[in-house]
Amino acid sequence: MLNLNRLKKTKGRFSLINTQEAKVVDVINNSLIWGARNFLKEQGFIWVEVPTLTKITGACENVDTLYKQDHFGEKAYLAQTGQLYLEAKIPLHKKVWTIITSSRAEELADDRHLNQFQLIELERQGDLEALLKNTEGIIKSMLKEALKDNSETLQELERYDELQRWLAEPFPRITYTKAVGLLKEREINWGDDLTSKEEKYLISVYGNKPLFITHFPKKIKFFNMRQNDDDEEVVNSADLIMPYAGESVGAAERENNHERLVKRLQESQMFKILSSQGKTVDDFKDYLDLIKEKPILHSGCGIGFNRVSQSVLGVNDIRISTNFPLQRGVLY
Amino acid sequence: MLNLNRLKKTKGRFSLINTQEAKVVDVINNSLIWGARNFLKEQGFIWVEVPTLTKITGACENVDTLYKQDHFGEKAYLAQTGQLYLEAKIPLHKKVWTIITSSRAEELADDRHLNQFQLIELERQGDLEALLKNTEGIIKSMLKEALKDNSETLQELERYDELQRWLAEPFPRITYTKAVGLLKEREINWGDDLTSKEEKYLISVYGNKPLFITHFPKKIKFFNMRQNDDDEEVVNSADLIMPYAGESVGAAERENNHERLVKRLQESQMFKILSSQGKTVDDFKDYLDLIKEKPILHSGCGIGFNRVSQSVLGVNDIRISTNFPLQRGVLY
Repeated sequence: MLNLNRLKKTKGRFSLINTQEAKVVDVINNSLIWGARNFLKEQGFIWVEVPTLTKITGACENVDTLYKQDHFGEKAYLAQTGQLYLEAKIPLHKKVWTIITSSRAEELADDRHLNQFQLIELERQGDLEALLKNTEGIIKSMLKEALKDNSETLQELERYDELQRWLAEPFPRITYTKAVGLLKEREINWGDDLTSKEEKYLISVYGNKPLFITHFPKKIKFFNMRQNDDDEEVVNSADLIMPYAGESVGAAERENNHERLVKRLQESQMFKILSSQGKTVDDFKDYLDLIKEKPILHSGCGIGFNRVSQSVLGVNDIRISTNFPLQRGVLY
Repeated sequence: MLNLNRLKKTKGRFSLINTQEAKVVDVINNSLIWGARNFLKEQGFIWVEVPTLTKITGACENVDTLYKQDHFGEKAYLAQTGQLYLEAKIPLHKKVWTIITSSRAEELADDRHLNQFQLIELERQGDLEALLKNTEGIIKSMLKEALKDNSETLQELERYDELQRWLAEPFPRITYTKAVGLLKEREINWGDDLTSKEEKYLISVYGNKPLFITHFPKKIKFFNMRQNDDDEEVVNSADLIMPYAGESVGAAERENNHERLVKRLQESQMFKILSSQGKTVDDFKDYLDLIKEKPILHSGCGIGFNRVSQSVLGVNDIRISTNFPLQRGVLY
């Protein structure tokens, strides 16, 4: 009888490395990554390598969770994302992707955050609608590959019918504003980020399957998410929240108006923290210059591989999704 | 007219990111990685994720080129290899692989070394002969995919016929001892490592194509390379040296005799350095325990993706093989 919960623990993890539970996770992860790769190839995305030891441009909004690194006397960071480097390749290829080990120095070791995880990132010419088609496509391709290769195992885990159900129809979509309306009794204010509890509630309202929440408030999202033409308080973005795992994909159009982009950077919460550390707009110069020279409308997303894996496995602890769950207090 | 040499430079690299030369490198790299992935899938290798922020067990023999990192008060390192973590999965899957961004703090910025590069690693149950079949197979699959997708470009670069020639026959193999005999006039002593100049000479003697050099002296190789049953001064290892790039793959049987393995670790050059830094055999305990419990004969290799790319492109500078060549004095 499989007991995936054995894999929650981080200490003494090597003693579990060759258990049947670990085998199940490995083979499902192998299928999931192949489902992603196959989709990206079919859709004409070009794989591009990106650096993971970077300037501040390897940070996403969570600049307070950067691992700092010395690079022969220069201040460097372990990349959280390869997004800006991928975006730089849009003019040449129109559709690009990469996969990195994303590093986040989250100090609190919990069931939702790993200090390192696999992050699949893609960028494409086009708007949010084109991107969401790809986002839903890649997730469904991952699920299909897992079902195809592991039907018996997924039956045993009582996940098979559930995953089939997720595939049957388009993922539902609601706006952030509508979500807040549904959550009112939970005392959320427009402009607050959603908690994982609130995500769970929304998923339960929308049929217990992956759910897109779109058009988040500009002020809580990354500086280069493109603002909506009709409502400049929101950005053309979407988070995909998945059962068990919560936020699993972050997706958005990228601001391609250079002037607005610089202004958004300067006004961002992230930049306030960076300024206090001596950083300036110049640290983003290479990226900003590229957008100035080639202001192509493009969109991209980052898929937290281990969150998807967690959701497919149907477990409440992300540590189960990997052999080497890195957290505070443990190293492998 | 394509001039790949434009891509040698590291400073101001963003201005080259959307050149036709960068496009050629990107699409060839995309084909190469697909060639590798397809081969590994066909041969039944399971992809497994490995950590890249690790204990000392993420080091290969070059412990003096480790990036040090603080992990909430614990000493950690940016992984050079995921080998030992992959080996831990052998009992479960027999054949496993991964791809990581390998980090090497080589201080000297030159045309042969990047501080970060893509490293494809595979481990399998079986001996060196079985492994070398896979090693040659994966490299040839990479070349074939590049030729299939980019025949015109490779014609233009005058690489097409050359790469076809490499595919036509098995890669030649010589022992290290024979190589040293051929190099005698160059004043090499048995036991010395080969210089890149010497590698180039050997390649010229063996038809200017990829060449396996096997059975290196034990004392200059990683502690867990398995010693030869008939000659205990050498290990059952092979380096694949490729035109233009030199050493591109390191392959070996892994020592599966626990007692001998511990002794080899303690006697290794690497361990001398580590001891002076306060490390002990205990830092390798998880790995050593696994070998003790499941002493399965297995073998593995690490493929320096950018070296293969450099060789396929036919260029003398590894910086040409990537959009973001990380070296001392530059960050992206």
